[in-house]
Amino acid sequence: MNAAPKITGATRLYAIVGDPITQVRSPEVFSERFAAMGVDAVLVPFHVPHASFDAIVPALLQLGNLDGLLVTVPFKARMLRFARRLGAAAQTVGAVNALRREADGSWTGDMFDGVGFVRGAEAKGLSVRGRRVALFGAGGAGSAIACALAAAGVKSIAVIDIDPEKAHALVDKLRQAFPECAVSAARRMPQDVDMVVNASPVGMRPGDGLPGDIGPLDSGTLVGDVVIAAAPTPIIRHAMRFGCPHVDGRDMHGGQIDALIAFFAPAARAPAGLSAEVA
Amino acid sequence: MNAAPKITGATRLYAIVGDPITQVRSPEVFSERFAAMGVDAVLVPFHVPHASFDAIVPALLQLGNLDGLLVTVPFKARMLRFARRLGAAAQTVGAVNALRREADGSWTGDMFDGVGFVRGAEAKGLSVRGRRVALFGAGGAGSAIACALAAAGVKSIAVIDIDPEKAHALVDKLRQAFPECAVSAARRMPQDVDMVVNASPVGMRPGDGLPGDIGPLDSGTLVGDVVIAAAPTPIIRHAMRFGCPHVDGRDMHGGQIDALIAFFAPAARAPAGLSAEVA
Repeated sequence: MNAAPKITGATRLYAIVGDPITQVRSPEVFSERFAAMGVDAVLVPFHVPHASFDAIVPALLQLGNLDGLLVTVPFKARMLRFARRLGAAAQTVGAVNALRREADGSWTGDMFDGVGFVRGAEAKGLSVRGRRVALFGAGGAGSAIACALAAAGVKSIAVIDIDPEKAHALVDKLRQAFPECAVSAARRMPQDVDMVVNASPVGMRPGDGLPGDIGPLDSGTLVGDVVIAAAPTPIIRHAMRFGCPHVDGRDMHGGQIDALIAFFAPAARAPAGLSAEVA
Repeated sequence: MNAAPKITGATRLYAIVGDPITQVRSPEVFSERFAAMGVDAVLVPFHVPHASFDAIVPALLQLGNLDGLLVTVPFKARMLRFARRLGAAAQTVGAVNALRREADGSWTGDMFDGVGFVRGAEAKGLSVRGRRVALFGAGGAGSAIACALAAAGVKSIAVIDIDPEKAHALVDKLRQAFPECAVSAARRMPQDVDMVVNASPVGMRPGDGLPGDIGPLDSGTLVGDVVIAAAPTPIIRHAMRFGCPHVDGRDMHGGQIDALIAFFAPAARAPAGLSAEVA
């Protein structure tokens, strides 16, 4: 995993697009993964100033040696229209965090934030199947996680958002896409849940508390948080206090990597000679 | 020089733009140089299909973390208009092979192909000062080399091109820019030269001969060629046959690197903390 990327004229490009960009970890993670796989590709940061998004992005997608893009804040929803084909999660969420170039030059997009959460849990030996979930936050991250949880077989999802309309809109989308999952909008956390997920921004700022009135937890309750922070966030500290298993923003990010590598399938995109070499 | 580049979200980007692109050596050379200098930057290949040049390039120049560009075939002349300021060589040649982003976001361009030739000769202990030059080829490469030779103090330049108008146009430009150098257009190689340079494409294709009727050479004659090839080109073989010192396309390419690093001044562009570290 410590293979160092080497860049030549034949190296294929992947990029992560965002504003700001300096905080992203994907260039290091994916460039090293490509090198370890023997694939001649690197992932570089593209700082797209948000005011220039419409001027820059369509042009970037015409670069002849760009095979894939990751998308971060604030472009996940705006990037959707550049994909000719969308995966199920992207369609339901209305946003993409990855695009890959197809053989015909068109782009296919999908959303892996939710899958990353489920895979991050699995990597810690935690299963979400059959759980009754309280989900705080019905925005992009919440939508992605809700889709992935429903797809992974949770029993029910209660969606809680300070904006009830957002909660109801997400519930409607989930009911259409996952009729077998009991989805509802809630004003406060239901009593009978065994999984609590924070997909709201609460916990990002110093001094933040919990995203809602969570109260004492049973030690079997699985607690999740999308916030990526150096120290445990309030809801993760709450989980630790009650001895609950937990999945944080870093677990979620790490959980996406294998899924994204499979989506990009970089070896299949390398020139014929190399492809044979790494097959 | 074998330092391996590491790519993070904060890594600054340089790129080489061309069509085709897989053959370029700059990504490897410059990325390793940046790493050896302790500068957090890489140079990546950007394959710009020539039909999409006008759609792609203005957008690329808006990327917030792109600090410099190298330009190769077929874009050296077309890239000129994106530079707000031009160096003397670029102005005279009418083409650029490098651009750097200034603090105000605008781009400065210059042409280093000719300087590369002179530096490549110097790196082999060969001086061009005072020499009487026969130059085959009045295109982009010939123009760049003629400017650099005049600036480096050659005594005279006879320009030979199969298109006499091209030769005369270059002679006019050189006379204006370098009045102290005796420049003329010629139909054939003058007798009294002590330097012969091929800046024409002759020698690129298998079966090519010499670019003109060069004849036997004095062993003190300095012979140069812009063609980059795995094996010695016809004019370099001719030089070797008469024991003449010679400078080939690889020497010319290598001779540019220090000049381009100085032009880019990557350390000065790095974030403040890093800049102090490498100062």
